[in-house]
Amino acid sequence: MTTAAASKITGKNHIGYRISAKGTITYKTFNPELNTDNEPTFFEASSEEINEAVSLATKAFESFKTIPGQKKAAFLNAIADEILNLGDTLLQTYCSETGLPEARAIGERGRTVFQLRSFAELVEEGSWVEASIDTAIPDRTPLPKPDLRRMNVPLGPVVVFGASNFPLAYSTAGGDTAAALAAGCPVIVKSHPMHAGTGELVASAIIAAAQKTDMPEGVFSNLNSSGIEVGQQLVQHPSIKAVGFTGSLRGGRALLDLAAKREEPIPVFAEMGSVNPVIVLPEALKTRGEELAKTYAGSITVGTGQFCTNPGLILGIDSEELHKFTKLLSEEIIKVNPTCMLHPAIKQAYQHNRATILNEDNVTVIAEYPNEPNANYAKQTVAVVTGEDFIKNPKLHQEVFGPFSLLVKCKDKQELEKAIFNIEGQLTGTILGNILEINEYNYLLSLLSNKVGRVIFNGVPTGVEVCPSMVHGGPYPSSTDSRYSAVGTSSIKRWVRPFSYQNWPNELLPNELKNENPLGILRLVNNQLTKNTIY
Amino acid sequence: MTTAAASKITGKNHIGYRISAKGTITYKTFNPELNTDNEPTFFEASSEEINEAVSLATKAFESFKTIPGQKKAAFLNAIADEILNLGDTLLQTYCSETGLPEARAIGERGRTVFQLRSFAELVEEGSWVEASIDTAIPDRTPLPKPDLRRMNVPLGPVVVFGASNFPLAYSTAGGDTAAALAAGCPVIVKSHPMHAGTGELVASAIIAAAQKTDMPEGVFSNLNSSGIEVGQQLVQHPSIKAVGFTGSLRGGRALLDLAAKREEPIPVFAEMGSVNPVIVLPEALKTRGEELAKTYAGSITVGTGQFCTNPGLILGIDSEELHKFTKLLSEEIIKVNPTCMLHPAIKQAYQHNRATILNEDNVTVIAEYPNEPNANYAKQTVAVVTGEDFIKNPKLHQEVFGPFSLLVKCKDKQELEKAIFNIEGQLTGTILGNILEINEYNYLLSLLSNKVGRVIFNGVPTGVEVCPSMVHGGPYPSSTDSRYSAVGTSSIKRWVRPFSYQNWPNELLPNELKNENPLGILRLVNNQLTKNTIY
Repeated sequence: MTTAAASKITGKNHIGYRISAKGTITYKTFNPELNTDNEPTFFEASSEEINEAVSLATKAFESFKTIPGQKKAAFLNAIADEILNLGDTLLQTYCSETGLPEARAIGERGRTVFQLRSFAELVEEGSWVEASIDTAIPDRTPLPKPDLRRMNVPLGPVVVFGASNFPLAYSTAGGDTAAALAAGCPVIVKSHPMHAGTGELVASAIIAAAQKTDMPEGVFSNLNSSGIEVGQQLVQHPSIKAVGFTGSLRGGRALLDLAAKREEPIPVFAEMGSVNPVIVLPEALKTRGEELAKTYAGSITVGTGQFCTNPGLILGIDSEELHKFTKLLSEEIIKVNPTCMLHPAIKQAYQHNRATILNEDNVTVIAEYPNEPNANYAKQTVAVVTGEDFIKNPKLHQEVFGPFSLLVKCKDKQELEKAIFNIEGQLTGTILGNILEINEYNYLLSLLSNKVGRVIFNGVPTGVEVCPSMVHGGPYPSSTDSRYSAVGTSSIKRWVRPFSYQNWPNELLPNELKNENPLGILRLVNNQLTKNTIY
Repeated sequence: MTTAAASKITGKNHIGYRISAKGTITYKTFNPELNTDNEPTFFEASSEEINEAVSLATKAFESFKTIPGQKKAAFLNAIADEILNLGDTLLQTYCSETGLPEARAIGERGRTVFQLRSFAELVEEGSWVEASIDTAIPDRTPLPKPDLRRMNVPLGPVVVFGASNFPLAYSTAGGDTAAALAAGCPVIVKSHPMHAGTGELVASAIIAAAQKTDMPEGVFSNLNSSGIEVGQQLVQHPSIKAVGFTGSLRGGRALLDLAAKREEPIPVFAEMGSVNPVIVLPEALKTRGEELAKTYAGSITVGTGQFCTNPGLILGIDSEELHKFTKLLSEEIIKVNPTCMLHPAIKQAYQHNRATILNEDNVTVIAEYPNEPNANYAKQTVAVVTGEDFIKNPKLHQEVFGPFSLLVKCKDKQELEKAIFNIEGQLTGTILGNILEINEYNYLLSLLSNKVGRVIFNGVPTGVEVCPSMVHGGPYPSSTDSRYSAVGTSSIKRWVRPFSYQNWPNELLPNELKNENPLGILRLVNNQLTKNTIY
């Protein structure tokens, strides 16, 4: 593999095409496998640097917002190329800052590159602007009908907060950044402190790509921060028009509240916690209990349980088969070798949140990895509680980020329905069942669908396919805005608003709306979808 | 014209299919033309009644959310029929509660009926759910690709606040209600106290339509209120999932803040104030100054200036032609006979807000209707100020709801740009110019487009066409969510969220997503738009 010349970690902020370290707060990242600090020192962005980045982004917006789709596509593809050019340096830095294995680094890089190229394809083709044209009827009575033409336009400069658990795919050049740049919004990334080195390498790739493809300076900046102040200042800046965030409920809600209190409130797209309820129906347990136990032992522990789609809650109706499934799951899950968590702080939170649940009345541990694992490794744990206790205790509904799952034994279908009625909004809900028994559970399914963004039949919630039909999002508190997906090309809609031209001269219209349809995109013309020219 | 048997004003709340008057607060509507109270007494909804309405709506949602498009269409068309059946009673009540002329009542009823029928057509056809299907690739490596199918689903029970200035088209059965019902959301209307009788008549039409088309009880309720408490309780109720509002910035912002502070924050679609800047360019003034002055005298005074798209701000570069235009506009506008405002409170607010602006330094009245008009009639007024004074005084940027416009004389193009840069978000922006001079103002247009939802070339902002390409909405504070239009069938998007099925059995999928496409709708299948069956 090759290592690009630019792939150097300076620890400084990237503000447009400059690097800058005016702040006095410094910090380092941590290698959880080696249980030591990593070498480079990072300089937290100062208030002045934040203002510089926003000011450059605001200026860049005036030209970037109307840049042709082909040029934006070239930029996005160049980012993908530059990320691949970072080669081993990126993979090694990723691993050293996360404790995740190289195979995961390679896989996540692949996903990141795929996302960038998917958005490039989307904007190069161009129909994503949802162009709609209603032509004039000058002789309509009592009043003439004007010519109206609508398309999506970018919101303005946006801020993206990197995720701790996806240093590539949902951080610096991740889904939020790719979607926002594709839409025409300059992006300022608030770098995640746990993987600031990975972040800086990717930022340098984005900046190299921007320079190579002639983007306006300020289309991208990367600001370091170990605390919450940099993010707060960014979200409160009047020139920032939207926020993307992936992380904890506490963090996401704090940003949402800040944004709501602004003189001009702005949207916050926060993808937060989820316990992803899995409902096991009786017939499935009878016929496939063993297979399901094995599958779920894997799904609960994959990536040390550090996925927002981790199955943290399994619900069933008490029976001999559920008892057997519980025993099998317990046996299978302790066979899995513990793995490293992202950071000592994440491990600490895991232990704290797990203990909170285990200390509640009538919660019993049924499986816990028996030996003491390495320093930042997590012991996978499964606990059990009755439906009655679960329903009356909202503390048991909370996410434990890590390899933990709570099994809820309901006494009957009604109690199971009540349990689902009582949980909060979720990213996903899963039904494990046989096709013939499903119709008995229509009301349960209806209740479940009110709570989630995606339902899965006979599968696992972990694994989020990147495709147009994916919804990654759901009712609060799994996300702050269930009307948008955070994964898939439809996520571009978060960064745009519709804009309408009335009686605008054809030669002054953007290409997307001109009579002759120079981009050859699909448009709604007088209520018919067509690529035709308007005469 | 006919008068339906049901068209009786009881003054009571309509909760599902019952009428109820448990509250102790009563009020009457006011006839601004006659300057007296209207006869009926209205009973404000009690806390108990609010909970009953929400509880019925929540129960209704479980069946209404999956009702076929054809049945929803029948319901919406039946509402339109029942509104027309109200005949003269509705028109007379409308006029007696608003001071607006019968022609306006007939026109607005036509718009309301048109909107209902447009949404009926939309949901009967069915493609509005934006179905998207990615079929499985079981042998993909390293992991199989699951089958994913996405469509829009309704958010849940919603609350709609009627507008003072559109008792029919943006109130009880107006755009918000029609769009929400079309989406599958039960609606609770917080009736506007100024036209509570009109509201009750329309509510009775909706309820008659619901009964005739077998809708679940609770799909619609109408609650009376003269103060803010009923609305506050509704917005804070945990079972309410979204809010539609048309009215003042103060009212909209208060609801937005309430919704943001909920344990589960919910979207608020508030369409609020706007001054709708109109930029007159030099060449247009030279060639068409007289015509423009006449047109704008009409646009400022139409409907006593009580439109959210009223041109409250006219900006130009100081010149002899602008001086001439100012003089012509002044002469034309005082020729218009003053008309009645909606309510003494609206007249009072007009006078107060007008005075606030006129009392600021260096603001000069250049036209004001010279005689004392009838009791609740408004004197149309035009004032003038320099660009410099306008830029430095944000008070001058505020809306005066009524027949008022402020003319801003800028010393040059740069000052005009600065003025536009300094205004807040607006519903519309208008350019009056000759085609050849436009290119000199590219930067001005770019700045204007950041501030508005719709730009108009050589027209007036008043008059909002109902069609797919309309955007009625814009950056804050003209609306709370610039990502959605309040007018046109695209406004249905406000009330839905995307929902994804993974590996779901074909027979259990909703019709919209089944392989055989029984509804024959347009779907994105493996990234191709098609109506084809999936094999």
